[in-house]
Amino acid sequence: MTQIQQSFQVPFTYNVIFTENMFSLENETFINFLKNFGNANFRKKILFLVDAGVAENHEYLPEAIKNYFANQDALTLVPEILVFEGGEKVKNDPQVLETILQAIDKHGIDRHSFVAAIGGGAFLDVTGYASAIAHRGVKHIRIPSTVLSQNDSGVGVKNGVNYFGKKNFLGTFAPPIAVFNDSNFLRTLSDRDWRSGISEAIKVALIKDLAFFEWLEGNAEAMAKRDEAVMFHQIFRSAELHVQHISSGDPFELGSARPLDFGHWAAHKLEYLTNFEIRHGEAVAIGIALDSVYSHLKEQITADELARIITLLKTLGFEIYHPALAENDKINLWKGLQEFQEHLGGELTITLLVALGKGVEVHEIDFELMKQSVDILKIS
Amino acid sequence: MTQIQQSFQVPFTYNVIFTENMFSLENETFINFLKNFGNANFRKKILFLVDAGVAENHEYLPEAIKNYFANQDALTLVPEILVFEGGEKVKNDPQVLETILQAIDKHGIDRHSFVAAIGGGAFLDVTGYASAIAHRGVKHIRIPSTVLSQNDSGVGVKNGVNYFGKKNFLGTFAPPIAVFNDSNFLRTLSDRDWRSGISEAIKVALIKDLAFFEWLEGNAEAMAKRDEAVMFHQIFRSAELHVQHISSGDPFELGSARPLDFGHWAAHKLEYLTNFEIRHGEAVAIGIALDSVYSHLKEQITADELARIITLLKTLGFEIYHPALAENDKINLWKGLQEFQEHLGGELTITLLVALGKGVEVHEIDFELMKQSVDILKIS
Ligand SMILES: NC(=O)c1ccc[n+]([C@@H]2O[C@H](COP(=O)([O-])OP(=O)(O)OC[C@H]3O[C@@H](n4cnc5c(N)ncnc54)[C@H](O)[C@@H]3O)[C@@H](O)[C@H]2O)c1
Ligand SMILES: NC(=O)c1ccc[n+]([C@@H]2O[C@H](COP(=O)([O-])OP(=O)(O)OC[C@H]3O[C@@H](n4cnc5c(N)ncnc54)[C@H](O)[C@@H]3O)[C@@H](O)[C@H]2O)c1
Ligand SMILES: [Zn+2]
Ligand SMILES: [Zn+2]
Repeated sequence: MTQIQQSFQVPFTYNVIFTENMFSLENETFINFLKNFGNANFRKKILFLVDAGVAENHEYLPEAIKNYFANQDALTLVPEILVFEGGEKVKNDPQVLETILQAIDKHGIDRHSFVAAIGGGAFLDVTGYASAIAHRGVKHIRIPSTVLSQNDSGVGVKNGVNYFGKKNFLGTFAPPIAVFNDSNFLRTLSDRDWRSGISEAIKVALIKDLAFFEWLEGNAEAMAKRDEAVMFHQIFRSAELHVQHISSGDPFELGSARPLDFGHWAAHKLEYLTNFEIRHGEAVAIGIALDSVYSHLKEQITADELARIITLLKTLGFEIYHPALAENDKINLWKGLQEFQEHLGGELTITLLVALGKGVEVHEIDFELMKQSVDILKIS
Repeated sequence: MTQIQQSFQVPFTYNVIFTENMFSLENETFINFLKNFGNANFRKKILFLVDAGVAENHEYLPEAIKNYFANQDALTLVPEILVFEGGEKVKNDPQVLETILQAIDKHGIDRHSFVAAIGGGAFLDVTGYASAIAHRGVKHIRIPSTVLSQNDSGVGVKNGVNYFGKKNFLGTFAPPIAVFNDSNFLRTLSDRDWRSGISEAIKVALIKDLAFFEWLEGNAEAMAKRDEAVMFHQIFRSAELHVQHISSGDPFELGSARPLDFGHWAAHKLEYLTNFEIRHGEAVAIGIALDSVYSHLKEQITADELARIITLLKTLGFEIYHPALAENDKINLWKGLQEFQEHLGGELTITLLVALGKGVEVHEIDFELMKQSVDILKIS
């Protein structure tokens, strides 16, 4: 037996840039980024894809984008700005993916041109996927417009669409070339979407960063009252922790390292059981509450620590219980655990808490105790 | 403006393993590889996808695979072995991709399980693509069964399918976890497929390795007569050069470095103009001949050097001219050059020869001289 060994590293670099009103003419952050990117000899185009939730609430946007790119020699703006409905539905609709691919083809977007997407986490997942598979990857720019996409999903390296009724069945690991977090977009979020992404900050704080958890406690009321400065600080710190987790671990999840998914096994199941009527962030809040109660019953965190977690979630306005948890004598939830194990490749790995700011991985769940946790949550 | 900098490297490692009769019980190379791969705690499955060109000529294969995996505790063979027609058609048929994804779903192939594909370059391109997008990438093993896929396409990192009538419009960069080059499969190739892949060896020899070019000259007749030992040596050296090129350059083509594509601009156009009736390798042979004549007219290689290239191609039995080159007053070929430029992002880059074993990149083509090259080729 002879063999040839192949071995290489692929470097990925991108910045998450915090800005405001990125398409106002005096804000040159975005245009300067584009001008300085890549080989100056290539003629570059830029195609915009916009979440309808953004388009409807920021009606000036198409005009602003056109003005922003007027008189730019180095870059050609594709005049057609595509708008698609946002939210989980967009990930279920094969026609949206097809239409984006058609636009990439029709407007001659090549591997050196840009596809910029403005929208929530769901919208960025499908546009990121289209950008990753067209021509084996065009240059993709993410402009997240929700709290969750600015503090978690939009700053990461994954994309995906739902297929065969399975969440993210199709997708790739494909880092964007840049992320622009524009705080102005967040102002038009419903209270629900303003809130829901905060659960991802609580998640990462609980398993990694006590100081940040305490900061969240101290600023929960202000966030609930839509204090912008406080919210933006939360987003920055959460994004930073998510970004660090990716680079310090196994970014493309090639081995068996776990992503940051405290509270997520139950959250995924809840999203399904409610037919995606609850948001990912809302489901994560409930999942965090559930696994925190379980961690306490396992005597890994104290009653006082548990109370602090529940209080934080409630202060922010999160529901911490959903009837679907108990549905079918809790057998549906039990199936969720099995599916999670299946998804991981046979070995169950669940993150629990051993302290505020400190997670631990376990490979077994005592489901009787988990059922008790559901009952406790119901009356909490 | 504040920003968070993200930067990481993703390591990829895989071996190209040369073996013979890999599914005979006494050959434990493959099973040992599978057993030692990844985390022992994961329950792993393996799904086989087979090119009909292989299945029809190696009828013992399904049975041999089943015997090979009988009594293996660590691994579960998916009993259904999927067979699809090979050749370029498979890359045009969305139903094949869909059926592979369904099988991955139905049989519960997860990110720790394997999808092994046995087939020619076209078959490996579509199966590699399916494996790359399902669950954001399942573990993919390539078992190339043609000369071209063993000496070039199968040892690389690209996959793809044709879409919107465009070759490889959809695809990703996704290294396999291993490549098994089993010489036994090559014995049943038609003379045409035995020959066609040799052009990729000539391509890489001409731009990188004079000694290998001379070796090819010395062994051309033997290869034409289907001397196996000589053919296997050619495949090994060509695979080695292709593997080295990938790791020494820009494996995912994120920057503007060029892949190994001497002779390919005309080849791509020829494949289209003939509606894929000529094989990729055959088109590459003509593309090499054309750009070699042009390199000579540009006084970059001597008449003697050109003659050696043409002689080598002819000795192997390649056609070096196709009427489609001159079609429509050579305007179709001219369009091919424009499309290639378009594909590259606006800056044309063509590899030419300055000596046997030495390529050079140029950014302009004198098309009058290129037309002359076509005419010379016609009468050569
Ligand atoms: N790729 C990843 O790593 C990752 C990580 C976590 C979550 N996710 C995914 O993200 C999705 C959830 O994202 P989300 O919480 O952003 O919700 P979402 O994308 O579902 O958006 C929620 C709603 O907000 C609207 N909207 C978006 N921006 C707005 C704005 N500026 N003003 C007003 N309305 C606006 C949308 O149109 C939509 O109706 C889920 O699909 C989840 O699976 C992905
Ligand atoms: N991914 C890459 O980097 C890359 C590089 C170069 C070429 N390619 C692609 O590879 C394809 C060409 O590959 P190819 O030359 O292997 O041809 P092919 O895949 O088209 O196969 C040619 C024929 O041989 C048959 N066949 C396969 N194995 C056989 C065997 N052992 N015995 C008998 N018949 C067999 C097939 O069924 C098919 O009919 C093109 O689509 C080309 O674009 C990809
Ligand atoms: Zn999440
Ligand atoms: Zn080729």
